[in-house]
Amino acid sequence: MIPVLSTREISILLGDRGLAYGDGLFETMRVEGGRVPLLHRHLDRLFAGCERLGMPLPERGALAARAEGLAESAGAGVVKVVVTRGAGSRGYRPPEKPDLRVMTEIHPLPDIPRSHYTEGVSLQVCTTRIGRSPATAGLKHLGRLEQVLASSELRGDCAEGLMLDEHGHVIEGTRCNLFLVRAGDVFTPRLDMSGVAGVMRTLVLETAGALHLRASEVLVSMEDLVQADEILLTNAVIGIWPVSRIDEMQWRRVPGPVGRRLMTAVSAEGVPSWSP
Amino acid sequence: MIPVLSTREISILLGDRGLAYGDGLFETMRVEGGRVPLLHRHLDRLFAGCERLGMPLPERGALAARAEGLAESAGAGVVKVVVTRGAGSRGYRPPEKPDLRVMTEIHPLPDIPRSHYTEGVSLQVCTTRIGRSPATAGLKHLGRLEQVLASSELRGDCAEGLMLDEHGHVIEGTRCNLFLVRAGDVFTPRLDMSGVAGVMRTLVLETAGALHLRASEVLVSMEDLVQADEILLTNAVIGIWPVSRIDEMQWRRVPGPVGRRLMTAVSAEGVPSWSP
Repeated sequence: MIPVLSTREISILLGDRGLAYGDGLFETMRVEGGRVPLLHRHLDRLFAGCERLGMPLPERGALAARAEGLAESAGAGVVKVVVTRGAGSRGYRPPEKPDLRVMTEIHPLPDIPRSHYTEGVSLQVCTTRIGRSPATAGLKHLGRLEQVLASSELRGDCAEGLMLDEHGHVIEGTRCNLFLVRAGDVFTPRLDMSGVAGVMRTLVLETAGALHLRASEVLVSMEDLVQADEILLTNAVIGIWPVSRIDEMQWRRVPGPVGRRLMTAVSAEGVPSWSP
Repeated sequence: MIPVLSTREISILLGDRGLAYGDGLFETMRVEGGRVPLLHRHLDRLFAGCERLGMPLPERGALAARAEGLAESAGAGVVKVVVTRGAGSRGYRPPEKPDLRVMTEIHPLPDIPRSHYTEGVSLQVCTTRIGRSPATAGLKHLGRLEQVLASSELRGDCAEGLMLDEHGHVIEGTRCNLFLVRAGDVFTPRLDMSGVAGVMRTLVLETAGALHLRASEVLVSMEDLVQADEILLTNAVIGIWPVSRIDEMQWRRVPGPVGRRLMTAVSAEGVPSWSP
């Protein structure tokens, strides 16, 4: 069955460079107690992305007010912001003066079992490899087809899938960044060729520094995961999840001592349910 | 200025997985004399892409009829077909039974100078590198941000830009595939890690075979271009353009003998203006 859209609806969709070419960016922000605790971190990343893509910047005050208004009326949930380079004629080349389109929407908070924080989550290693793109690495852009394909592999008992690049480097989850802890030091994969530089990833790196932990961005192999004392997943909706299993590998004492300190510290940013 | 959309418009846009995640495919088909000469080649590629992405297939007869109807009423132009995995809740994981969305639209034919066929075109080498993604290489999917960035580099005197991967392999143009001719043999870059496997690329490979030319898919370096007797660009709207210049490199006798034979042969598929 081919769903029927009106001509007007088709032209809104097809005329938008976000749909046509993935020419845009998005943010998904956690709402807690009628507020968006990480709002300005999200806007900072969004604006840095717009600059990297040569897009004009949205009006920050208006966008912040709109997100805060949605948050206040909903109480809890996820505010999604999508910015596209707007309508344009056919052709990849961006218009000289793009008519930026900024859209906001509120979604319900996903149903996260409390045990994901207190006992950890299981991961599977996806067979879908994540691509390498120096031009777009780090950006939360609209082209997420690799993540869609990797997500479709996920078994019901796994909360997240791990994505490796063509060389077997561990990059991130389908929707989370990854951290590992070894001998008290904190490591996360470099994202100069692949992956999304998450808002929570940046917050965790900063928090590690504030806690006087050594934290660095490195190349990560599967062998590094085997050797890790603790493994953590991060994103701005879930906060931090400790990992208890990856395929046949298991970790006991979950969350571990470093994960516990980081979880407590980020929950102080305004989301009590992020605490272990 | 933030353009204002109605709530209904925003929900159509944001609710579509094509916009949200680039979860879809597209085709742009040349219309000539009220017909779409390569219609079934486009539909074959579209359907192969749907299968690779685990998407249900559109109803082929209805889609062909819609494209033919647009072509007949316009006479000349470009029919664009976009297929997305439809609406869905937030989250990368595709719905088990996606409600495929199929959209068609007609655009005017781009204004192509006759000299592009008779005297060749100039290319520039883009600094934006094309990514490597085994999961999506070859597909004409909706995530084309690298091509957008590369296109924005194009100088006014260049008809197309050449995209290299991180290793310096030559992959394709921003919107064209690339062929080179050396000692009478035809070569085109392998697309198992990057690029779009164009409908015209496949037609040119088949046509070369029918003309008893040896044609193969290979790794291509910039040095291979320097050594080439002829270089050609292909896509389903333009047909074949011979290349007369890439940055400081120049080719004389454009189109060359092999390019001329291929151009004549593909124009016999139903687009007279593709002939040299």
